[in-house]
Amino acid sequence: MAGGKKADDGDVDAIARVGRELGQATVLFHTRLAERLGLSATDHKCLDLAMQADKPLTAGALAELSGLTTGAVTAVIDRLERAGYARRVRSETDRRKVYIELPEDRLEEVNAITRSLGESAGKVLRKYSPEDRKKILECLRELTEVLRSHTVDSDER
Amino acid sequence: MAGGKKADDGDVDAIARVGRELGQATVLFHTRLAERLGLSATDHKCLDLAMQADKPLTAGALAELSGLTTGAVTAVIDRLERAGYARRVRSETDRRKVYIELPEDRLEEVNAITRSLGESAGKVLRKYSPEDRKKILECLRELTEVLRSHTVDSDER
Repeated sequence: MAGGKKADDGDVDAIARVGRELGQATVLFHTRLAERLGLSATDHKCLDLAMQADKPLTAGALAELSGLTTGAVTAVIDRLERAGYARRVRSETDRRKVYIELPEDRLEEVNAITRSLGESAGKVLRKYSPEDRKKILECLRELTEVLRSHTVDSDER
Repeated sequence: MAGGKKADDGDVDAIARVGRELGQATVLFHTRLAERLGLSATDHKCLDLAMQADKPLTAGALAELSGLTTGAVTAVIDRLERAGYARRVRSETDRRKVYIELPEDRLEEVNAITRSLGESAGKVLRKYSPEDRKKILECLRELTEVLRSHTVDSDER
């Protein structure tokens, strides 16, 4: 924007800094949660994706969502199954299809943490007016897109 | 807040959802960046901490910042040094102190990615008025605190 750029840049930089802190806090939150559950970061990410889906996923669907190969996903499900966080269930209508079911009781620890996090975040957000929340939402959406567009492909070296 | 809670909850939920997406995008961004550099998540995290510090860190300072044991930090620095992302330099004034120096040329790939990310995020933020940015900043700060306060201690099982 013409004019006032210098004055503006102070809070743009401040947001960039807090964005970086939020990023680190996010990575640390997920790392610790995975450690607590005795899972690797990849296993935990797959569990998280399966938990967010509104119906049980097939291994193929999980591969697609996670960006992992089907071989890697098979190993992930093996480990989740051994740790008790997932169960393979064969489809009644199509015996070739295997769904990943999540035993609710084993997920209670994860659910309790994320529920409490969601409630606290909700309390913060409700302090803002609906108009402000609309802007915050829009800004977070755009920043998410920016982050996605800067996420490198790890194979391209 | 009394009244209008139902209407409010739609955008609180929408922000919660985008918050979750932002979290996943953040974890993926860091995972891919670490993979691209040929580093583990822990090694990459330590490198990131060292890069953000305004002067070279000692191994002890890195242990404190990362929450890792000094033994674990020694192994991290060994790996970073082997991969060429860090160099141990003994203090001229206190020979017992060893600083971690980062060779600028090897960090150029990381720097280019984060610089470009920062520029794109800056463009998004400059679309908002200074008043809106103040609110966005405040909200992100509070959400970072919420996330930190919900980060479990992985040892407490």
